[in-house]
Amino acid sequence: MLNVAVLGASGYVGAELTQILAAHPQVSGLQLFHSGEQPGQFPFHHFQARSRGQVAAPVEPFSPEKLSDFTDVVFLCTPHEFAADHTPELLKKAKVVIDLSAGFRFSDASIYQQYYGFTHPNPDLLGKAVYGLPELNADGLNNATLIGCAGCYVTAASLAIAPLSKNGLLKSGTLPIISATSGVSGAGRKAQVSTHFCEVSLTPYGVQNHRHQPEIEKNVGVPVVFQPHLGNYKRGILASVYLFTNNGVTATDIDQALNKAYENQPMVRLLGAGQYPAVQHVENTPFCDLGWRFDEARGQLTVFSALDNLLKGAASQAVQCFNIRFGFDMRTGLLPLEHA
Amino acid sequence: MLNVAVLGASGYVGAELTQILAAHPQVSGLQLFHSGEQPGQFPFHHFQARSRGQVAAPVEPFSPEKLSDFTDVVFLCTPHEFAADHTPELLKKAKVVIDLSAGFRFSDASIYQQYYGFTHPNPDLLGKAVYGLPELNADGLNNATLIGCAGCYVTAASLAIAPLSKNGLLKSGTLPIISATSGVSGAGRKAQVSTHFCEVSLTPYGVQNHRHQPEIEKNVGVPVVFQPHLGNYKRGILASVYLFTNNGVTATDIDQALNKAYENQPMVRLLGAGQYPAVQHVENTPFCDLGWRFDEARGQLTVFSALDNLLKGAASQAVQCFNIRFGFDMRTGLLPLEHA
Amino acid sequence: MLNVAVLGASGYVGAELTQILAAHPQVSGLQLFHSGEQPGQFPFHHFQARSRGQVAAPVEPFSPEKLSDFTDVVFLCTPHEFAADHTPELLKKAKVVIDLSAGFRFSDASIYQQYYGFTHPNPDLLGKAVYGLPELNADGLNNATLIGCAGCYVTAASLAIAPLSKNGLLKSGTLPIISATSGVSGAGRKAQVSTHFCEVSLTPYGVQNHRHQPEIEKNVGVPVVFQPHLGNYKRGILASVYLFTNNGVTATDIDQALNKAYENQPMVRLLGAGQYPAVQHVENTPFCDLGWRFDEARGQLTVFSALDNLLKGAASQAVQCFNIRFGFDMRTGLLPLEHA
Amino acid sequence: MLNVAVLGASGYVGAELTQILAAHPQVSGLQLFHSGEQPGQFPFHHFQARSRGQVAAPVEPFSPEKLSDFTDVVFLCTPHEFAADHTPELLKKAKVVIDLSAGFRFSDASIYQQYYGFTHPNPDLLGKAVYGLPELNADGLNNATLIGCAGCYVTAASLAIAPLSKNGLLKSGTLPIISATSGVSGAGRKAQVSTHFCEVSLTPYGVQNHRHQPEIEKNVGVPVVFQPHLGNYKRGILASVYLFTNNGVTATDIDQALNKAYENQPMVRLLGAGQYPAVQHVENTPFCDLGWRFDEARGQLTVFSALDNLLKGAASQAVQCFNIRFGFDMRTGLLPLEHA
Repeated sequence: MLNVAVLGASGYVGAELTQILAAHPQVSGLQLFHSGEQPGQFPFHHFQARSRGQVAAPVEPFSPEKLSDFTDVVFLCTPHEFAADHTPELLKKAKVVIDLSAGFRFSDASIYQQYYGFTHPNPDLLGKAVYGLPELNADGLNNATLIGCAGCYVTAASLAIAPLSKNGLLKSGTLPIISATSGVSGAGRKAQVSTHFCEVSLTPYGVQNHRHQPEIEKNVGVPVVFQPHLGNYKRGILASVYLFTNNGVTATDIDQALNKAYENQPMVRLLGAGQYPAVQHVENTPFCDLGWRFDEARGQLTVFSALDNLLKGAASQAVQCFNIRFGFDMRTGLLPLEHA
Repeated sequence: MLNVAVLGASGYVGAELTQILAAHPQVSGLQLFHSGEQPGQFPFHHFQARSRGQVAAPVEPFSPEKLSDFTDVVFLCTPHEFAADHTPELLKKAKVVIDLSAGFRFSDASIYQQYYGFTHPNPDLLGKAVYGLPELNADGLNNATLIGCAGCYVTAASLAIAPLSKNGLLKSGTLPIISATSGVSGAGRKAQVSTHFCEVSLTPYGVQNHRHQPEIEKNVGVPVVFQPHLGNYKRGILASVYLFTNNGVTATDIDQALNKAYENQPMVRLLGAGQYPAVQHVENTPFCDLGWRFDEARGQLTVFSALDNLLKGAASQAVQCFNIRFGFDMRTGLLPLEHA
Repeated sequence: MLNVAVLGASGYVGAELTQILAAHPQVSGLQLFHSGEQPGQFPFHHFQARSRGQVAAPVEPFSPEKLSDFTDVVFLCTPHEFAADHTPELLKKAKVVIDLSAGFRFSDASIYQQYYGFTHPNPDLLGKAVYGLPELNADGLNNATLIGCAGCYVTAASLAIAPLSKNGLLKSGTLPIISATSGVSGAGRKAQVSTHFCEVSLTPYGVQNHRHQPEIEKNVGVPVVFQPHLGNYKRGILASVYLFTNNGVTATDIDQALNKAYENQPMVRLLGAGQYPAVQHVENTPFCDLGWRFDEARGQLTVFSALDNLLKGAASQAVQCFNIRFGFDMRTGLLPLEHA
Repeated sequence: MLNVAVLGASGYVGAELTQILAAHPQVSGLQLFHSGEQPGQFPFHHFQARSRGQVAAPVEPFSPEKLSDFTDVVFLCTPHEFAADHTPELLKKAKVVIDLSAGFRFSDASIYQQYYGFTHPNPDLLGKAVYGLPELNADGLNNATLIGCAGCYVTAASLAIAPLSKNGLLKSGTLPIISATSGVSGAGRKAQVSTHFCEVSLTPYGVQNHRHQPEIEKNVGVPVVFQPHLGNYKRGILASVYLFTNNGVTATDIDQALNKAYENQPMVRLLGAGQYPAVQHVENTPFCDLGWRFDEARGQLTVFSALDNLLKGAASQAVQCFNIRFGFDMRTGLLPLEHA
């Protein structure tokens, strides 16, 4: 049984993570910290009314000395800069830090400068961090001390493309185009005019603003075009990925590459060729659903990938990493291990 | 042809009003002023993207000297206090002030103290203001210099109840219960956590917090219970009104009272007994739809009233008042005067 | 470990129930039957795509001989008439029938004639059925062979009113008014114009059409006015209940009556006076949330009650009854029994 | 003043068209026909409750002899096959037929066989029909007797691409990728499980099912990949179009091509480079909004195109064609010709 702490339990991702951890059969102790915008201590249902009565731990402002001496794992649902900054001191108290921000996703420190607008304060740690997208990168998670979890759009896109690019099925010189839509929770809980109920409407944003591109490209090994949109729903991502294949690639090649990549992965559900995911079908689940169709005559393949941005795109992915790290079944706390 | 100005054209109500006035066949000049939160001058589509290209006038911060000397009418879509404060000086420049706030809805100044939390700075003007709910109060609008337009919930509730209470059909000692739901635009454009897309969900608010009660009671002549709810949609109000009738009241009495009240009122649509309104059917229209059903055995009558909170609840109601004031057909600028 | 069967697993309620039972730690065998509209056998995810991979049992057309000889419990998510008709033969094969339809909610057979439009074919069984609303009627559930579970609106309304009426706090001669709104799932999965995405909009229905009234009145002991509305969201009910109290009743009396009624009830969450529920906070949960406010001067009390119509209004309520019947903790399969 | 008839006034497109024509200043007579699914004659508000009181003409089942001898124009909002079949006889009674179905969009009859699944019964008429997408094809509309209006997705996609492809800016050998999302009204009013409120959720459909491809390719002159999605909102289309440009193409080239194409087109609003449309901003308007951004380094251009599928994608586009055909200002009945 482990003692864990969540920093940023007051945000949408942190609240989902807290809900999972509070009911996780291997978690005995839970400390919760909020972002500090409001002073004082709150019951968890102040931030997640749905969980009223289901989480005993209060949510406090963070300061390092409050962290229990018995903390096994610290989960960070904080701004990137905070994670980049504070991880060394957290690692002195806790065995493992699992960071859900982008603070430790890259081994190349220059990416923080170029795409995130800050100089990474702990570049030496970048090389030690293990990337947390278990289906593509199981190596090293089981003895990591620092895990930098993949982002939501990146997970959706990378799971769709990586098995194809890594098997050499994509036509070189063509760029995969990822046209993706996220629910509003992806923008966080902060009050902004852009997330006002009356303002939300399907629209693109971050056009050719490449922050997610290097992360996807690292995962899939080829350059891509990535375009996010805001959808008028609360949670979930659908990524429609348009690809061109090498001459001679067949539908069977596509099916085999995807099946082989995910045959033992409980969190990826392959709907198969001719079956397509929908946001609602992954909402409130830890799954990424993949469906596709291949036009052999044109060599044009479209892969659709759907996940819940707060879960497989963040909180449940972090719990998968946690489960792997401590040798639990990957589904622990996320899915029933048996069912009728 | 008239010159008009809108103060508060940057809010949801002001923007709807501006859209109507810009296309109103009797309006030749239009001045637009925003709330001043952001400095500088903006094209109107900065606040109402739908109207891009349809409103030529820019939106500026307000100061009295900017108001054209030829202004005929000033419309106020401002906070109550601003309207209460600035109306005297505006009346020096303009023939008529039409106030969409609560600044001039009551003749009794003590209501501002008790329910709105401020001392009215111009109590002498309260007696001169004409109440702007044309179907219930046509008197005086045609030569008013100051019109205090009715609010959105109040219009929905009062149109449902007044013909019944005024005809003595309601059982004395019973309180009409008004259970009403409004779309999120009723909360204004300001960014707040409560109007964040992910937080909005059907819920009551303002419980037994009686601000709208005195206004409804003034209109219908009896005490009431009023309960608002926030609905997860953008615009529109549905008020479900539960009433008990005097012994001997028949379904015909009900029908006659409502028919007589609204037979010549183009903005009230009587669906009739056994037919019920829906929010969608009044969205983007200047109508209030009424439907009802009477249980003679119990003497229990339920009346349903629906309107668009931004239009019949605010902007189009103000234009109705404007049309009456200047002798135009009440529908001018709101509905086609003829149709096939 | 028990073997259970679900009839009507293809509907919205049946699908939710199946999801719960498939992961219930005391259920080892699961048989699923669909309504028979489409011939043939389907994987469960054909009806509930979210559960792909989580329910092993196929969904077949029902015929009595398919029911395993080892069936302990049959859950009925079928039309009322089907349940009323087939329960005797089902009781020959299974130890217990838990009926989620209205087929066995009333001991008085005339109610079926008057309100449901059919003559009950097994009136003798009505007296043996135990009513399934555990918080109000725990008696008899632990050894029942036939349980007739309460409906969704009825549960929301009854939990709000019963502790008040049963403690004599309500003014006699006044009718509690229940103004309630349900998400569209309450109308079932069948394709109808009224549930078309583009037609759904807040509107009343079933006006003074008293089907739910006798069930509520039976539970609370006083006559009521009940008015349902269709809301533009998928799941959840909010009931706003307007009540008048006896002279001398205090806020403390109200609080005590509600606290005493639910102090040991894990599925009712009392938010307390001045705190109000929201549909979103009970969505996908087995809870009924209650909040209220009392205007002592007027003797007017408003109670707000929210629940998920598919869960506490149907599927999770049936599982509560199942848990009680077999001596399990009431929360089994619905909530973690422990949490951090 | 003209006499017009609408066939299919009971569908979503037909109802929008009827609303426009009933208030069109050049229309004096209006005949309305429904699809015949329900027998008998209905008031128009039976199909479009919002328009109660605004359309005098009743809606009847169609039969050719009911068509007035003075009919100038027949608008067809019917299935493709009906339009293809009945147009010759309609042209005997009316001066002009404006077809909103796909019945006369192509001059090549084989497309009906290949993509629409029927043999065109009047292939000789195909050559006489003028294609109704005024911004790209003004020629011939002013003296057409038969107009085959462009479809909704096709309009959004073609307006985004045509000025670029026709100016030779696109890299040959690359396929424009059109990833588009439509509101549910695009699926029509018929009750189907797929448009049930509880089933709608962002999802792709019609994957590599090329019905719209030949129409887009005809308009833009290059092969394309077209992928539609269903969005969880009522009306509006957003098309995100991913393009690769020829070497040496500059941002200025892009801007000039688009500006030149639409500088005198009141229904296309160019938001410009770096500004992006949103579905809500075109909802209930006759506009197509275009915004874009060009990555010169990669030669990658993304153009976003938004319109209301029922208006610029159907009804208002047909009225534009009607206005051009009869020499009225293109905006007549759609926009105020003057505004303040």
